[in-house]
Amino acid sequence: MFEFRLEGTSGVARAGTLRLPHGEVQTPAFMPVGTHAVVRGLSANDVRRTGSQIILGNTYHLHLRPGEEVIRGLGGLHRFTTWDRPMLTDSGGFQVFSLQGLRRIEEHGVEFQSHVDGALHTLSPESAMEIQWQLGADIAMAFDHVVPGQSSFEAAGDGMKRTLRWLDPCKERHAELTAQPSSGSLQTMWPILQGGVHDELRLRSLEGTLARGPWTGIAVGGLSVGEPKPVMHRILERLEPALPADIPRYLMGVGFPADLLEGIARGIDLFDCVAATRNGRHGTAWLPTGRLNVRGAALKDSAAPLDPTCDCETCTTYPRGYLRHLFVVEDILGLRLISIHNIRFLVRLGEQARSHILNGTFDRWSSDWLLRHYARGD
Amino acid sequence: MFEFRLEGTSGVARAGTLRLPHGEVQTPAFMPVGTHAVVRGLSANDVRRTGSQIILGNTYHLHLRPGEEVIRGLGGLHRFTTWDRPMLTDSGGFQVFSLQGLRRIEEHGVEFQSHVDGALHTLSPESAMEIQWQLGADIAMAFDHVVPGQSSFEAAGDGMKRTLRWLDPCKERHAELTAQPSSGSLQTMWPILQGGVHDELRLRSLEGTLARGPWTGIAVGGLSVGEPKPVMHRILERLEPALPADIPRYLMGVGFPADLLEGIARGIDLFDCVAATRNGRHGTAWLPTGRLNVRGAALKDSAAPLDPTCDCETCTTYPRGYLRHLFVVEDILGLRLISIHNIRFLVRLGEQARSHILNGTFDRWSSDWLLRHYARGD
Repeated sequence: MFEFRLEGTSGVARAGTLRLPHGEVQTPAFMPVGTHAVVRGLSANDVRRTGSQIILGNTYHLHLRPGEEVIRGLGGLHRFTTWDRPMLTDSGGFQVFSLQGLRRIEEHGVEFQSHVDGALHTLSPESAMEIQWQLGADIAMAFDHVVPGQSSFEAAGDGMKRTLRWLDPCKERHAELTAQPSSGSLQTMWPILQGGVHDELRLRSLEGTLARGPWTGIAVGGLSVGEPKPVMHRILERLEPALPADIPRYLMGVGFPADLLEGIARGIDLFDCVAATRNGRHGTAWLPTGRLNVRGAALKDSAAPLDPTCDCETCTTYPRGYLRHLFVVEDILGLRLISIHNIRFLVRLGEQARSHILNGTFDRWSSDWLLRHYARGD
Repeated sequence: MFEFRLEGTSGVARAGTLRLPHGEVQTPAFMPVGTHAVVRGLSANDVRRTGSQIILGNTYHLHLRPGEEVIRGLGGLHRFTTWDRPMLTDSGGFQVFSLQGLRRIEEHGVEFQSHVDGALHTLSPESAMEIQWQLGADIAMAFDHVVPGQSSFEAAGDGMKRTLRWLDPCKERHAELTAQPSSGSLQTMWPILQGGVHDELRLRSLEGTLARGPWTGIAVGGLSVGEPKPVMHRILERLEPALPADIPRYLMGVGFPADLLEGIARGIDLFDCVAATRNGRHGTAWLPTGRLNVRGAALKDSAAPLDPTCDCETCTTYPRGYLRHLFVVEDILGLRLISIHNIRFLVRLGEQARSHILNGTFDRWSSDWLLRHYARGD
């Protein structure tokens, strides 16, 4: 269990298969985000039909509503959501450090105010593990200290070092939980690299993390939080040669279409992002020819599919004129259908990248794709 | 085509099969309402899975958005919505006469202001037929003059007589449209009885309507518009013996659960109502044990299905605790799942009634069902 088999490379781009308790994940792969135990607006069947192999749950949100005890009582996150494939939960670190309200960082953890009702809560390395254990996803994430994208060397170093210090109690508590006789060890835990935009801190984060291993996977956190894209790319390039080849690498919170290809080209295997569903809800569809506002008057009379090259439920079923109509009359079916397409678009991009990596054509294909993308100014 | 085969009776309750260009409808049957060419929040597949055999479209709404020419250009209402089973469109009469804004009733038709942008439009018997012909449903409805439920004999008589006068141009224009060489006559048109709460007017409406026949079906309009339920039941009882037995009878805009059984017991074959989806959106589920507020705290920890006796997607898939959670976090999946259940509840009530009619057990079953229903005070 939790094995990763590397099946092919093209430069540093990788194709592999990750074995998890609820199934296999062929990488590279995009993971849709199920913030509140639901990929916004979609049923588990809708998401399955997009070809998604693994989805995310947010520990922060699920801790507040309905609470991990409720989910545990109902048989865990898989039974609760009826999603029977692999799942990953984040640790709540990102949400807690992004909160606008009251927040107090102590060495033992973070005290924060719920955005729902203002109540005080505390998340610590230990409690983040306990909550995720109760939720029961295949993969739990370590509790990390995320700093904004433009943080100074000192501030980013501070967060990175705290993340490393927190990794010890995370690992220890997670090992205790999975060692319980009844557990069957059906969950693994992955560490998160921090260090802001500073190469030296990033490499020290990696060194400290590997020293605390071994791990079944590793995540790069604290990117796509305000820093310029070239900076993110540079950090991935600096990290890549030092990352272990035999475990999957997960770039957290990153997942616009071009980000996927840029990340894969830099050795990343897994991605997640809410942009697919957020754009879908706002009527923006991702197409091979660029973004499309589904409300546009030009779609009114169109019998064409949204994306004639796409095999998703939306594109194989509905004419553009009908999709536009749903947004005009404000029916929620519209939000759902565009979200389904956008997720399928990213999942398919992962599938295409994988096939090009295995065929040795990834470089040419991805650089052509990105050239067209940037030429459009998307 | 447009044949109705009566297959069994139990008292005046009837079980039959209606043949339409897009398929058969086994009656009695509930028809979900697709106001804007979409059953609010549901895909055509969602609706198919509820066992619905026929759905409605609203001429008034579709005339305003996206317009019948757009739908015609995209291949008609079936292609537009991807609903491939039978469809019926109303005539717009009910909406036009329910509008709060400007409205001028003339002998040739009704001038009214769009609720969307205030623009002036006119609906007449002829244009209501032309619009419905372009929409292309299996069944079009005559353009009628609907009066409020408490209208005086004089006001109700006025509306009833105008409805009868309008029936002539409706019939004539519809015959011209379906006689076009290319048409293949793939649409029929049904008249609507009016007369408010006055038995004498209702019977005169029926007499005048039958004199203008023959018809392939007949509708009872202008009920469930503010009059007490016993009054509606009395009118149905007065009409029933005089209704032709060999065509289906459609009670317009009526369809809370008890209304279905009360109507079937009085010889009605078809029903439509937005209550199933409207209640669904507000988190009210219809169960054999009465209404349930899905937001209720008692559901939080419940692993039970919403309705253990129901075979719908919602009840066979999700625990109550998850359905409640979706409403708490305000995810639109919740609205959809409860709407699916409520529609299935009504569709199944039709199926059960049919089976009891064919088995000769309808009376006992429906009176027991209604006794329990009224005892709860639903």
